[in-house]
Amino acid sequence: MNPAPTPHPGFDDILAAAARIAPHAHATPVLRSRTLDALAGCELHLKAEPLQRTGAFKFRGACNAVWSLTDAEAARGVVTHSSGNHGAALALAARTRGIACHVVVPEGAVAAKLAAIEAYGATLHHCAPTIAAREAMCAQVQVDTGAELVHPYTDPRVMAGQGTAVLELLAHSPGLDVVVVPVGGGGLAAGSAIAIAGASPTTELVLAEPAGAAETHASLAAGERLTEFVPDTICDGLRGTLGAPNFDLLRAHGAQVVVVDDDATVHAMRLLWQRAKLLVEPSSAIALAAVLAEPARFAGKRVGIILSGGNVDADALPTLFAGTSATFRKE
Amino acid sequence: MNPAPTPHPGFDDILAAAARIAPHAHATPVLRSRTLDALAGCELHLKAEPLQRTGAFKFRGACNAVWSLTDAEAARGVVTHSSGNHGAALALAARTRGIACHVVVPEGAVAAKLAAIEAYGATLHHCAPTIAAREAMCAQVQVDTGAELVHPYTDPRVMAGQGTAVLELLAHSPGLDVVVVPVGGGGLAAGSAIAIAGASPTTELVLAEPAGAAETHASLAAGERLTEFVPDTICDGLRGTLGAPNFDLLRAHGAQVVVVDDDATVHAMRLLWQRAKLLVEPSSAIALAAVLAEPARFAGKRVGIILSGGNVDADALPTLFAGTSATFRKE
Repeated sequence: MNPAPTPHPGFDDILAAAARIAPHAHATPVLRSRTLDALAGCELHLKAEPLQRTGAFKFRGACNAVWSLTDAEAARGVVTHSSGNHGAALALAARTRGIACHVVVPEGAVAAKLAAIEAYGATLHHCAPTIAAREAMCAQVQVDTGAELVHPYTDPRVMAGQGTAVLELLAHSPGLDVVVVPVGGGGLAAGSAIAIAGASPTTELVLAEPAGAAETHASLAAGERLTEFVPDTICDGLRGTLGAPNFDLLRAHGAQVVVVDDDATVHAMRLLWQRAKLLVEPSSAIALAAVLAEPARFAGKRVGIILSGGNVDADALPTLFAGTSATFRKE
Repeated sequence: MNPAPTPHPGFDDILAAAARIAPHAHATPVLRSRTLDALAGCELHLKAEPLQRTGAFKFRGACNAVWSLTDAEAARGVVTHSSGNHGAALALAARTRGIACHVVVPEGAVAAKLAAIEAYGATLHHCAPTIAAREAMCAQVQVDTGAELVHPYTDPRVMAGQGTAVLELLAHSPGLDVVVVPVGGGGLAAGSAIAIAGASPTTELVLAEPAGAAETHASLAAGERLTEFVPDTICDGLRGTLGAPNFDLLRAHGAQVVVVDDDATVHAMRLLWQRAKLLVEPSSAIALAAVLAEPARFAGKRVGIILSGGNVDADALPTLFAGTSATFRKE
């Protein structure tokens, strides 16, 4: 399929998204921890998107996309390809409007994740684990059903929806010096850039990216979008390639990237569990890890962090937390 | 030691406590989950005290006690006996005022918990694991230092402080039909009864108590305080005996008790992790378990729950969560 070029969303689109999703999405709390502040040497404002519906910020973008459709468009349903948080988010968003949702998933996807997407009422379409097979299946579903494609991160409605998380954070904690968000495909990153430009232009945007999938860092440094890389990171939500419109928006905004090792991300994940009592995904903990990795950069500043999601594989926890102090205590 | 009879705190004391602890304690968020609502058949309002400082509501009472002292009293410090959340809470509360804190702990207490109490700056005093040895050591510390005893649940300043959690919950979610809190020694329970009587007298108070330590249920049924029992429950925060003033207050208030099996509590703990992304202690999850255990009682009602604490032993999690679906997802 060849979707039409997507126009870049603007700040008005984020404000409209905030109003559109308000009846359906949670306004998540912003948490503080004096212990984490002391460890980081700065003032942290943690936007807790694990407490969002579906357990991740992804519901914001999916919900904005679904409720942006005309009634006629909505009647034909929506389709996407994702075996992760976006698939679940679109499924639930579609259910809030009572419309069909089709999710194309590759063979070999984790059964429990697929069960979660189905539990939200979506129809699964299995395909071979290649990009070509995935796109062909998406196109076929569109032909068969007339469903609207909602891309996980290049769709401007999705970007605008994701930007509402930072919009809420800046409303709660005005005048932050810097906001840190994880970057994978760049939906949250681009939406955050737009929200910051409109709501708090002196706030700096820092993107946290895993060392094993640091193509956003390389692309922004090179001034062109690099897409040839093999991701190798535990941050399963950040293995995707930065989208083309996302690259344009982030380049224009002058976003900075901090590259983070997986070990530092796991350490941050433990800290958030011990000290903020929040179970977050590695793809989410990486934002705190970025702050801890460059203390001089953030020293004494007021730092907002989007904790993006909390859908953790429970089986992985004993390994991730091996050697962690037996009793957790929060300050 | 023979402390003077403690006067029962009133609603004014809770309002004063709320003002007194406001500069130090977090106003914790009230979380909602449509999935949990659907499972419970009622509308749940979850007051998230795992996000309180020290990871539990106990900080409220300890902080109120510490900041109720005159400067002369405060200069002599505070003392308590607790190897759990109250010990850590009093230690941190004392630190917020810059005063000494002594915590009497029995031999055999969990090392990691003691380390946490020490990390907050308290001095540990070890004693034999009997009530007589504990009280003798507390009395000795009082003689030696002039420190003020802050009992974990019979102290009226502690009860008043604990009552601020329900006060905040009722301010956030006015007109709740019922509020459910766990009961052990009865500090939170008594404080909650007073807060409800003053702020929302038509709201019912339900106490959740483990079947393996259900002496509050037995005492209220018998009309007299029963103290002879051997606790057998995973709810380690609820193994204590209901205090005498706590019994009087709860009896006068007409509080109801729901007795909950440990299996149901572990199930609720899993649900809260899966669906609310909150890691809570068994002693905290029991309040949700009580609602799930008696669906007819709560059907269609607006139900507040105090999720009291989140200091979980990480080593116990793999066992507690064995067989739980591999991927957790929240709605």
